[in-house]
Amino acid sequence: MATRRQRGIPLSSLNPKFLHTNSTSHTWPFSAIAELIDNAYDPDVRAKQFWVDWTRIKGLDCLSFMDNGEGMTRARLYKMLSFGYSDKKAVKDHVPVGIYGNGFKSGSMRLGKDAIVFTKTRDSMSIGLLSQSYLQAVKAQQIMVPILTFRRDGQNLAEDAVSLEAILTHSLFSTEKELFSELRAIGAAGPTGTRIIVWKLRTTLSGETEFDFAADKYDIQIRASGSERSRERRAMSPESDWSLRAYCSILYLKPRMQINIRGERVKTQLISKSLAHIANDSYRPAFLTKRIRITFGFNTKSKEHYGIMMYHKNRLIKAYERVSCQRKAERKGIGVIGVIECNFLQPTHNKQDFDDTEQYRKTMHNLSTKLEDYWNEIRYRRKKDDPRCTIPIEDTAKAPDQVWVQCDSCLKWRRLPDGFDCSRLPEKWFCNMNHDPQFSRSCMLEKVEQEKSSLSSLCNHLKQDLEKLSGQIDRGAGPEREEAERKLSKLRLSLARLLVCFVPALNLEHVDVSSEVIDELLDQVLEEVT
Amino acid sequence: MATRRQRGIPLSSLNPKFLHTNSTSHTWPFSAIAELIDNAYDPDVRAKQFWVDWTRIKGLDCLSFMDNGEGMTRARLYKMLSFGYSDKKAVKDHVPVGIYGNGFKSGSMRLGKDAIVFTKTRDSMSIGLLSQSYLQAVKAQQIMVPILTFRRDGQNLAEDAVSLEAILTHSLFSTEKELFSELRAIGAAGPTGTRIIVWKLRTTLSGETEFDFAADKYDIQIRASGSERSRERRAMSPESDWSLRAYCSILYLKPRMQINIRGERVKTQLISKSLAHIANDSYRPAFLTKRIRITFGFNTKSKEHYGIMMYHKNRLIKAYERVSCQRKAERKGIGVIGVIECNFLQPTHNKQDFDDTEQYRKTMHNLSTKLEDYWNEIRYRRKKDDPRCTIPIEDTAKAPDQVWVQCDSCLKWRRLPDGFDCSRLPEKWFCNMNHDPQFSRSCMLEKVEQEKSSLSSLCNHLKQDLEKLSGQIDRGAGPEREEAERKLSKLRLSLARLLVCFVPALNLEHVDVSSEVIDELLDQVLEEVT
Repeated sequence: MATRRQRGIPLSSLNPKFLHTNSTSHTWPFSAIAELIDNAYDPDVRAKQFWVDWTRIKGLDCLSFMDNGEGMTRARLYKMLSFGYSDKKAVKDHVPVGIYGNGFKSGSMRLGKDAIVFTKTRDSMSIGLLSQSYLQAVKAQQIMVPILTFRRDGQNLAEDAVSLEAILTHSLFSTEKELFSELRAIGAAGPTGTRIIVWKLRTTLSGETEFDFAADKYDIQIRASGSERSRERRAMSPESDWSLRAYCSILYLKPRMQINIRGERVKTQLISKSLAHIANDSYRPAFLTKRIRITFGFNTKSKEHYGIMMYHKNRLIKAYERVSCQRKAERKGIGVIGVIECNFLQPTHNKQDFDDTEQYRKTMHNLSTKLEDYWNEIRYRRKKDDPRCTIPIEDTAKAPDQVWVQCDSCLKWRRLPDGFDCSRLPEKWFCNMNHDPQFSRSCMLEKVEQEKSSLSSLCNHLKQDLEKLSGQIDRGAGPEREEAERKLSKLRLSLARLLVCFVPALNLEHVDVSSEVIDELLDQVLEEVT
Repeated sequence: MATRRQRGIPLSSLNPKFLHTNSTSHTWPFSAIAELIDNAYDPDVRAKQFWVDWTRIKGLDCLSFMDNGEGMTRARLYKMLSFGYSDKKAVKDHVPVGIYGNGFKSGSMRLGKDAIVFTKTRDSMSIGLLSQSYLQAVKAQQIMVPILTFRRDGQNLAEDAVSLEAILTHSLFSTEKELFSELRAIGAAGPTGTRIIVWKLRTTLSGETEFDFAADKYDIQIRASGSERSRERRAMSPESDWSLRAYCSILYLKPRMQINIRGERVKTQLISKSLAHIANDSYRPAFLTKRIRITFGFNTKSKEHYGIMMYHKNRLIKAYERVSCQRKAERKGIGVIGVIECNFLQPTHNKQDFDDTEQYRKTMHNLSTKLEDYWNEIRYRRKKDDPRCTIPIEDTAKAPDQVWVQCDSCLKWRRLPDGFDCSRLPEKWFCNMNHDPQFSRSCMLEKVEQEKSSLSSLCNHLKQDLEKLSGQIDRGAGPEREEAERKLSKLRLSLARLLVCFVPALNLEHVDVSSEVIDELLDQVLEEVT
């Protein structure tokens, strides 16, 4: 094995076998799929929609993942095909799930032996190949990642010819035409986006794909063996353990992106809104200054599936994690679900667990105490309300305390009037269908609010500029002062033109730019919009 | 980020941050230490002894790991500092634990920010640095791994000068003399071996090391916070969860290597031999042709810690894993431990779990059924033996069915007579201390057996040679036949010299090398030694 060096010092090398090694952290295939969904969700891509599909290409079962996010430049694609180069940053309140720069590699290589990435930005289209079969075929000693870029300005790289040949020889696509047709597929979803195809999917011992594509044509399910026992085990476990549709419906605490599986939109669940007997509690870990909100309630669908739904930066890490009081012989907290977002804990490599630190253990201990308090409280209240009732609370039928529905246009969740019959909801629902004024907020209103908010930030900037110039005039003298006065007059004139939309009485032809009239008007408008 | 290429195709790159990413699969620090122990245990290193120590170097807490195995050549050290280059192979019945080529990187970088490796083979001594602090300090964009080799023949590499300078500047050791003193430390353990020092150890939020070195001066324990609750939680959990000594005592199903922690030998536990009411069962998964042995029994130390001890290729993967019947409300199988070696399952990235496949789920389901059978059987037998007994079986005091002790010389486990009082065992015990002839097998006997075995294999080889030459004589003619006859005579003479040790009546001066006397004598000896 030849040693590559940098500044005279050996560089650590990457064996193709490491692709498999690195993927073994995903013990469960949906955890691998979640990595690819996270990549589209994260603020650097900000896709509005995501599609997961099963497709057959040249006789092979494939999984395809597509988003209409921002796409990747060649440099970003190269980073995605390398290890540890995450430079995801939070954008406003949208915090990235990805931090490790490893999701695509560990996820795609867990699902299949080979993957190809097609991506389109406003200026370029790129293709990258990460393929264990290819590396084996060429007996590679290092991980080679053929990359190909088509720039909109036509300035394509001459050295890409070798990569193109490798892709055409070793991927599912043997002509440039076939590659372009995949790039065009992105166009159907939006001007930019990314499309990933994974093939040579992992199979079970009997040679079938680990996913069952036939059980439900609108779902991707983990294959169960045909045995009676296997069916029994499945019936006992939460649906999100084996149905991708069910898992995606709870993957994000506050959904920002629409996920579609095999053509059908996933109806996201706001889990904390689907519970009965909801109570909010909070918890301040000793090592934090802020209190963390915890929502408790009873599962309204099944009393068998309960425990804590633990999120981290909006993403589900552990589902139905039973706390110690739920595991003991006396079995407290049956049917009780807790929802918490633990941004203060560290998720592990596969984002299916938290690092087992003292903080984690303390958190679990406290969650158990609080869940037990909630359980006792609910039982006490029930006893008081109806002293003769003998049916345990977990065995009674329950309906969610509140009814919530997601708008198909703005993706926001809206509360419906109490007692609303969900079966009356249409297939597609929009904000303006909410007739009860108490709960009505239309998407249009939403847009006006957004405009107000950007106007307010603009006005604030202008106000600062006004104050700065006034300050310069007060302190300055001679030509400097004159210059500031000139600028101030100009700014007031621009401002007047802006403000006339809000103050129709303002006569633009008679504005006195030397007085503070305009400044006062600005203050008034500011007050109104904030 | 510059793109490195091979055969014109971009090479996937490794960011220094990936060292941390890769280490996050270890959610528990002992799982990281176990990786370093496995490396010494595996057949390519075959250390007889392993030492884990806490040491302070230049005011910093360090962990040191040393073995007296075969050491690494420069090429192997470079592979260890790279990713995915495992070429471990089974040697006879000694199957390697490591398969992924990732243990050292993920393990050492979980424990601390920086690590240095000193290794000695018969021909060379090498030093390698894997340091996150160093890579940060030089603002590396790739993982650079300074490596330095001193060959016994004095032919050192000129290009190592840059690596030497990096190591002296960025490691704990600032002079060549200090480096040599660490290499010399290996000499105390054997002519060859490896010594790893990890520093900038991970700390808790309060800034203390995550390990507590003060609680027990012969142990390395996971630090517990001082709170009452924290102490309670610890008292409830198995000792192997927080004491490295307890964990190492059960790390291998059949120990092959002596582990020493802070100067004291770890008394390995043969877990399946320490149980009460032992019963052996077996299990043949549908996808295997061989039956797998399962040992059930009651924990004789604590009824609180129970479940399955799941090994893979001799290495502990999951401890006290409760099966479904032990988790249900009726609480069956309390206090029952099962021991199984599941070589047919795939361990995950961190070797603390198995891949969640249909095979795994089936195995767990079957283990639950078998454990429940065992539990019912034991309770039935007890009821029959003593119908009036009302104390649940899990609450009675129990002693192990058999008493076993490990020989401090040959490391083999020996059974002691039933009813033997363990408190009478001396601190160090050797095979020849076993006076009961029924159980007595001395190490000496062991050695004779080993000699017999190698003699038998030698004799078999010689017999094949004899037969080959006889065949050539039968088929051959002319000079070829003469040549074969000459060789046969020579071989018979050598054989006679060997056999005289076993057949003193043989007169070397009158051996007839043309007859088959010697061949017959060989057959007799062969019969005796096999």
